[in-house]
Amino acid sequence: MACGQGDRRETGKVAAIHGRHDNVFCGELACGAEIIGEKGRFGMNMRFAEQVRVEVERKGNAACVGIDPALERMAGVLLASCKSDGGGQPDAEELLTRFGRLIVDAVADLVPVVKPQSAYFERFGPAGMRALETVMRYAKKKGLLVVLDVKRGDIGETSSAYAEAYLGNGPWAEMVDCLTLAPYMGPDSLEPFARVAMRTGKGLFVCVRTSNPGAAYLQNLIAEGKPVYAHVAEMVAGLAERQGVAGYSDMGAVVGATLASEAREIRAMLPKSLFLVPGLGAQGGSLAVVRDCFDADGGGAIVSSSRGVNYPVGEFTSLDQLGEAVRQAARSFVQDVQSCRTAVV
Amino acid sequence: MACGQGDRRETGKVAAIHGRHDNVFCGELACGAEIIGEKGRFGMNMRFAEQVRVEVERKGNAACVGIDPALERMAGVLLASCKSDGGGQPDAEELLTRFGRLIVDAVADLVPVVKPQSAYFERFGPAGMRALETVMRYAKKKGLLVVLDVKRGDIGETSSAYAEAYLGNGPWAEMVDCLTLAPYMGPDSLEPFARVAMRTGKGLFVCVRTSNPGAAYLQNLIAEGKPVYAHVAEMVAGLAERQGVAGYSDMGAVVGATLASEAREIRAMLPKSLFLVPGLGAQGGSLAVVRDCFDADGGGAIVSSSRGVNYPVGEFTSLDQLGEAVRQAARSFVQDVQSCRTAVV
Repeated sequence: MACGQGDRRETGKVAAIHGRHDNVFCGELACGAEIIGEKGRFGMNMRFAEQVRVEVERKGNAACVGIDPALERMAGVLLASCKSDGGGQPDAEELLTRFGRLIVDAVADLVPVVKPQSAYFERFGPAGMRALETVMRYAKKKGLLVVLDVKRGDIGETSSAYAEAYLGNGPWAEMVDCLTLAPYMGPDSLEPFARVAMRTGKGLFVCVRTSNPGAAYLQNLIAEGKPVYAHVAEMVAGLAERQGVAGYSDMGAVVGATLASEAREIRAMLPKSLFLVPGLGAQGGSLAVVRDCFDADGGGAIVSSSRGVNYPVGEFTSLDQLGEAVRQAARSFVQDVQSCRTAVV
Repeated sequence: MACGQGDRRETGKVAAIHGRHDNVFCGELACGAEIIGEKGRFGMNMRFAEQVRVEVERKGNAACVGIDPALERMAGVLLASCKSDGGGQPDAEELLTRFGRLIVDAVADLVPVVKPQSAYFERFGPAGMRALETVMRYAKKKGLLVVLDVKRGDIGETSSAYAEAYLGNGPWAEMVDCLTLAPYMGPDSLEPFARVAMRTGKGLFVCVRTSNPGAAYLQNLIAEGKPVYAHVAEMVAGLAERQGVAGYSDMGAVVGATLASEAREIRAMLPKSLFLVPGLGAQGGSLAVVRDCFDADGGGAIVSSSRGVNYPVGEFTSLDQLGEAVRQAARSFVQDVQSCRTAVV
């Protein structure tokens, strides 16, 4: 094995990173081929894209449920269930953990993937980070794939630090199957992530065309005859190509469900990339666009909803009742996603 | 006071955010005018840009020292100074804290600003976040301005969550004076940060033109007759304009020290923005470019170096010796920065 010691993954310990600094910058995507064997020792022989395929098949749908603990939206019964922080407010770590576990319990047998949004946890500093860790561990234990939504992206060694932390030999890697990335800083901002993902079999979703109202401002500018998002897609395609893996590569793409023509264009440019498709709920995306993100055989995409599932409408007098409402919202979302997928197949 | 309760800032407590959810989405930049008064109660009447001006004047230079604890580069004497984590490696929280405090002690009376890079702390999960908190508190205590380099950017409520966490009423806000942002998702990804900064007097640096080798891939594409980075600059200018503050606005820009013509072009587009100029050391930026980032009166920019100051060359047998070498490296960097600034004035 070229890039040793991959089984030392103690949370918060220097050992996990410093002990193998010889390969943190091992430099070559090519070394990945040997390292895939390393993963076998963790009982996960499959790369992320393959795991997604299997789990979508097993659960019968390609839905991904976000975990976005926005306190402003939380049900009173959940807030009241937590011990106080001493100042008359619920303890942040307990609240975020309870919220995350409630969502996981409600959807674990329904959907293949969950997507915690890091911002809502980071917001509470170390207490939030501990909650994020607990929730992701719990999701893994329940058999879910975990996409951590962090939209990171930086240069050189900083990207390497993020990549190792979340996908490599850092404290988060055993709970995270896949990460979201921001592309503005160019190929060298993504390459360290691609290199580590190649080694460990983890997945990446690069923001290519997002679903927010202001996305078009930069992403749809026409440069050299095509939109900026198409340049980003090319960058992703180039990295995917270099990986040379069979089937889907580790280089996935975030493609908002906003315009069918864009989805088709990006799908054609990224035949080897899994799509993460947000925007179907609160952001007003359309089912028709989601259809165009799937392959001809109904694979190749997972469709994400956060708010619509996390915050069902109604008054709840018990956590069981709230959990049941989340489960019903997830069922309804799954049906929407399935109607797109079966329309393709 | 329109957006009350700003003085409850207990780390990791829900109270700090949930107790004032009525104004997390208060919506209007305009409310900032009233809220500036709120800051007075913390003994910080000045906005970030004004604080920079005063501190640059007081310290006699516009240098910013990064705090990038990359374990692979750390001096043996520092590693050896930490207690063991039980597995024969130094304890991560202690190591990161010691490193950060050593840098702060070495440069506190020399430079006005430090810039911790979040990635190197996040890498260690909650232990790293605790270290980041300690280091930033220490820097504040020593009278330094703190720019937290996180390059965040997301949509709608998620950006609001980040903004409140780091600049508003979240657990990080009392240690952070300014944040770096990524622009790919468009104006609505930056606006929540602008809104919170306006309210609290904090600063922002949006990545306009970065200094990494691959930056040009997207940033220099020509769209509608100008490079993509100029479109980003326009977006920043638009937000700065809306703020309507006197002097420099809260909307600063990251402008790499790579090409003088670009620096001049961006300076002309962003007359109200402070520049954060990286790239002078390891990334090969030039002093001539740095000159073009300053105003005619030698204000308007801070120049950043991380690796060159953090990791002085040599063998060190004591922490004092290491600290002295960091101090010498900082002195040398300060001289370089000053030579640019005085050439302007």
